[in-house]
Amino acid sequence: MRDFHTDHRWLSINTATVRMQHGEPWPLPKILDACAARGIRAVSPWRDQVAAAGLAATAAQLKALELELSGYCRGGLFTYTDAASKQAVRDDNLRALDEACTLGAPCLVLVVGALPGALAGKVAHKDIALARTQVGEGIAWLLEQARARRMPLAIEPLHPMYAADRACVNTLAQALDLCEALDPAPAGEAAALGVAVDAYHVWWDPDLESQIARAGGGSDGDSGRGRGANRLLAFHVCDWLVPTTDLLEDRGMPGDGVIELPRLRGWVEAAGFAGYSEVEIFSRRHWWQREGGEVLDTCIERHRRCV
Amino acid sequence: MRDFHTDHRWLSINTATVRMQHGEPWPLPKILDACAARGIRAVSPWRDQVAAAGLAATAAQLKALELELSGYCRGGLFTYTDAASKQAVRDDNLRALDEACTLGAPCLVLVVGALPGALAGKVAHKDIALARTQVGEGIAWLLEQARARRMPLAIEPLHPMYAADRACVNTLAQALDLCEALDPAPAGEAAALGVAVDAYHVWWDPDLESQIARAGGGSDGDSGRGRGANRLLAFHVCDWLVPTTDLLEDRGMPGDGVIELPRLRGWVEAAGFAGYSEVEIFSRRHWWQREGGEVLDTCIERHRRCV
Repeated sequence: MRDFHTDHRWLSINTATVRMQHGEPWPLPKILDACAARGIRAVSPWRDQVAAAGLAATAAQLKALELELSGYCRGGLFTYTDAASKQAVRDDNLRALDEACTLGAPCLVLVVGALPGALAGKVAHKDIALARTQVGEGIAWLLEQARARRMPLAIEPLHPMYAADRACVNTLAQALDLCEALDPAPAGEAAALGVAVDAYHVWWDPDLESQIARAGGGSDGDSGRGRGANRLLAFHVCDWLVPTTDLLEDRGMPGDGVIELPRLRGWVEAAGFAGYSEVEIFSRRHWWQREGGEVLDTCIERHRRCV
Repeated sequence: MRDFHTDHRWLSINTATVRMQHGEPWPLPKILDACAARGIRAVSPWRDQVAAAGLAATAAQLKALELELSGYCRGGLFTYTDAASKQAVRDDNLRALDEACTLGAPCLVLVVGALPGALAGKVAHKDIALARTQVGEGIAWLLEQARARRMPLAIEPLHPMYAADRACVNTLAQALDLCEALDPAPAGEAAALGVAVDAYHVWWDPDLESQIARAGGGSDGDSGRGRGANRLLAFHVCDWLVPTTDLLEDRGMPGDGVIELPRLRGWVEAAGFAGYSEVEIFSRRHWWQREGGEVLDTCIERHRRCV
């Protein structure tokens, strides 16, 4: 396992972590400058932040600052209720894909969607099996577009508490089933479809260690599967607070909660992941109320000590 | 599948559902009277409510009203940090077991516990694997005591959002793995160790249908397991609201959320369950603010129409 104690070469900042300071938006250009000034080498920006700053301007700034991306957030939300909404979803995902290419992202992260209308508080239907079918079809369609652009797609399984409204792919096993069905890449080949493992979403899973090994391409023992491609495209960290007071925006700084982050990182690295450890924290009551630079400094310190 | 539309013969009320009215405690004797007055045939009371009313008095009232129990809430919380807390846990579980026997419960429901100290906001450690080991050992110990009293134990897997503080058994598959390891009862024999399937906790699980079939004693196909005992000891219903505003106390009345309750009940009954459908709702902002009788009337109406 890599030693993070002495530097932050492998720290990436998901820009949602500092999307606000004192409750007000912190613009992406300032976030990128503040990251570069601290020797942070990579970020993972969100589409709305990029749109506000301008795509070309963001690409130019990233290049000037020599900042890499550890991912691009995000495509997905594949579920729909009619032909028009299905087409709108696909058009939007194509735009996300093209933006990821322009920015030189290593992958487009997919939050796959769930029951249509749930995010607005009014579901069109309750059929989660149908939602899962639509998600599989949506990913299959997008994968062809992504292959043509050589842009890997990273399915991010979300915590089961988001199954109704954000993502109906809720375990690493479920995400890997999709990967293997849609992209049967053998060992040694680059996966066109992989996973983003976010500690917050998967830490509770009793099968986590074996499924991480499977994601890395190893046999998972139980299934008799042979070795396949390494599908570990991204690794996100934050922490689970006790108590957690909000389902979405009460995530913790690494070290402030109960997730054994070094153990998880050990599993991910043993499975072949050697990329960035991306800090992604949505925290309305704590970190979005602080000065942005202070949050970045804390991320650096915690990356070295707690991840 | 049984037709619930015309009567509520198979409705049970988990008494936490009406533990408060207008935010003030509603005493168990009054709850039991109100249930019986409505032709409700079964309840599942909580230990603190029974303690407040008196164990013998509660047993006598249940008998006088001809009310059955669909379960007794609850044993468990097996994790510990030292010999003294380990012994205290075991003593308390023995008391819960004896109370369940006195009340004539069909099973003692187990909420197994998680990281020690988490419920108080300060964890003693973060090792969820250790917590799971202690839970397995605690259930194994209690099972011997329960067998001697002929009282079945029902492991209730809780939603993964409770993995830190309430229960580190978070899927039906994980609960059934424990059951089969500790109580290898063959088909046709009564299980000493089974599960309580609560729709709120398991609805999101992509493996739910196959794991319910497995709980009923059927082979789950993938594993090659043969038929075993029917371990479906209890079936709880409430609903997942969108949005959900609190991790613990914002559960919905059946019909107000996104869970396909009739589909789940169909799976449970197809697997051999023929017992009560127990309504268990923790709802600080809605149902605990109403008059208790109104809540019971709503449970009856929703049981007939939405479960």
